[in-house]
Amino acid sequence: MFVGKIIGTVVATRKDPKLEGRKLLIVRPLDENMKGKKDYLVAVDTVSAGFHEQVLVVQGSSARMAFGMKDCPVDSAIIGIVDSFVIEDKTGAGQ
Amino acid sequence: MFVGKIIGTVVATRKDPKLEGRKLLIVRPLDENMKGKKDYLVAVDTVSAGFHEQVLVVQGSSARMAFGMKDCPVDSAIIGIVDSFVIEDKTGAGQ
Amino acid sequence: MFVGKIIGTVVATRKDPKLEGRKLLIVRPLDENMKGKKDYLVAVDTVSAGFHEQVLVVQGSSARMAFGMKDCPVDSAIIGIVDSFVIEDKTGAGQ
Amino acid sequence: MFVGKIIGTVVATRKDPKLEGRKLLIVRPLDENMKGKKDYLVAVDTVSAGFHEQVLVVQGSSARMAFGMKDCPVDSAIIGIVDSFVIEDKTGAGQ
Amino acid sequence: MFVGKIIGTVVATRKDPKLEGRKLLIVRPLDENMKGKKDYLVAVDTVSAGFHEQVLVVQGSSARMAFGMKDCPVDSAIIGIVDSFVIEDKTGAGQ
Repeated sequence: MFVGKIIGTVVATRKDPKLEGRKLLIVRPLDENMKGKKDYLVAVDTVSAGFHEQVLVVQGSSARMAFGMKDCPVDSAIIGIVDSFVIEDKTGAGQ
Repeated sequence: MFVGKIIGTVVATRKDPKLEGRKLLIVRPLDENMKGKKDYLVAVDTVSAGFHEQVLVVQGSSARMAFGMKDCPVDSAIIGIVDSFVIEDKTGAGQ
Repeated sequence: MFVGKIIGTVVATRKDPKLEGRKLLIVRPLDENMKGKKDYLVAVDTVSAGFHEQVLVVQGSSARMAFGMKDCPVDSAIIGIVDSFVIEDKTGAGQ
Repeated sequence: MFVGKIIGTVVATRKDPKLEGRKLLIVRPLDENMKGKKDYLVAVDTVSAGFHEQVLVVQGSSARMAFGMKDCPVDSAIIGIVDSFVIEDKTGAGQ
Repeated sequence: MFVGKIIGTVVATRKDPKLEGRKLLIVRPLDENMKGKKDYLVAVDTVSAGFHEQVLVVQGSSARMAFGMKDCPVDSAIIGIVDSFVIEDKTGAGQ
């Protein structure tokens, strides 16, 4: 999993029937200093996440294990609102 | 999932029997400014997408959850036509 | 999926019993101009592909959905011979 | 699988019901010299790993095969505490 | 799949019960000239591979299809000893 920030929304009127009523959010992955990476992905929301919130994202087939997503054509799901993300050892990177 | 643009088609006469009658499209992934990345992938169309349309693409085993794709040998499926892709916070990238 | 070119073969006498009799080919992924990328992968052939042919490759668990590959330990399968790969819009890349 | 080091923790009060009571740790992947890469991921702990320990991490759907993780929305799991990581041939890299 | 070389071993005393008795090897991926890439991964051995041997590695959920690996938390498995790896067309790369 990784931590990301919700930065926008995607609307698709014509779509797979199993996506009806799903909220599709644009998530920017965050690095370990909680700064945004230059990328995005579209994830389905399963925890009523709000704009700008830091969220936990699961990818791959496990996204279908998120609440209410069984057999849905989704490869990324928001499964938690991050309250704290604490790295106690920052000395390790690149050393 | 990610958003891409349909830029072409692939034709394969000799192919897996489960791919008979499937439309295989060439999709160029788009960055967050809706500009094309220098890459492509081949995805099966499940929503009758048209040339140049912006589409939502799902990857991995979840592509087989798209409409009509059960047990098919596909790892990428077009599952929606994107009507709007709105990023409300562009300040985050690289900051 | 992506399009690649068959550039060689792998022979393994001692191998998983489910790979007995399978043809393992070396595939070089092609970019959108049908030029080879500097990389390769080993894929199982399911369509009797020939040397130098351009082929369609599926990856991940969906490789096991290819003809005759059920429950096999393969993560890449050749599932089609590409007759035509036409990009009608080349202006998009990097723009 | 790969070897990483536990460098922190993630707390999420609002989350998928199947994540209740799970310990989510921040893992920094290690290179072959056991130096940290400039990246992280969030993995669920299944072996009571401790801070700073070197651990074995499994990714993808196989993370759900880890002890107690059946059907959980997790794509990375800590499945072992590494006692020794011995590379007997370092001459190979880039040669 | 890809071809790699066995360069070391990982020992983990405390680990997932399904990994008991499994041999975990460090594999360095090889490029098409059989030179080592600057990277490694940890794979479970299913063909009694030996040190320095060139092996075929499968990744993802298909690693669980390797002999004896059903339902195991492994995402990479060694499934063959490579006898020959022959690229008959080296002109393609980057051209």
